[in-house]
Amino acid sequence: MIKVSVMYPNGPESRFDDAYYCERHMPLVKERMGDALLYYTVDRALAAGKSDPNAPYIAMGHLFCESQETFQAGFGPHTKEIMDDIQHFTNQKPVMQFSEVLVGHEG
Amino acid sequence: MIKVSVMYPNGPESRFDDAYYCERHMPLVKERMGDALLYYTVDRALAAGKSDPNAPYIAMGHLFCESQETFQAGFGPHTKEIMDDIQHFTNQKPVMQFSEVLVGHEG
Repeated sequence: MIKVSVMYPNGPESRFDDAYYCERHMPLVKERMGDALLYYTVDRALAAGKSDPNAPYIAMGHLFCESQETFQAGFGPHTKEIMDDIQHFTNQKPVMQFSEVLVGHEG
Repeated sequence: MIKVSVMYPNGPESRFDDAYYCERHMPLVKERMGDALLYYTVDRALAAGKSDPNAPYIAMGHLFCESQETFQAGFGPHTKEIMDDIQHFTNQKPVMQFSEVLVGHEG
């Protein structure tokens, strides 16, 4: 399984609308990606909006897929629509990370 | 639930021993923290050891706890032992992130 982490930089000027992200953006991503997206998680910095070395990102979303190929197949066709939605919940440009999950948690 | 992300910077000079990390370091953390650590996950960059904007971190470990207080109570007394072990699997200094889990995955 792979994990695509989308990480929004934190700082005094960073704004991030949790409600929009959790209730509209991520459900949009899930709807567009369908079965290509196994599940997703969302993290919110405990020190959001501050200069804190223990909160480099104000928020992070993580997309879990079987492989890079399934991610690309599911996300690729909707990239513009999904990226265009970012302005509605943050003033930050996300940093991406593509990882293999070595140790996961399936409940 | 909170999540403490320990993120090791990636780059051509970065080295990271997955086997040591997964088989020795993280089990040590779990053993020392006991029930204060609900579970943990491990990610490995798909572009480990390269300069790749989609892999800012060569690896990441994530510790899931009920609260910051339970994390501190479980981790605090063992900080030196755990930090001293880092030299055995990487030449990188980790970046930390303390987050609240807004959307989790419990299987």
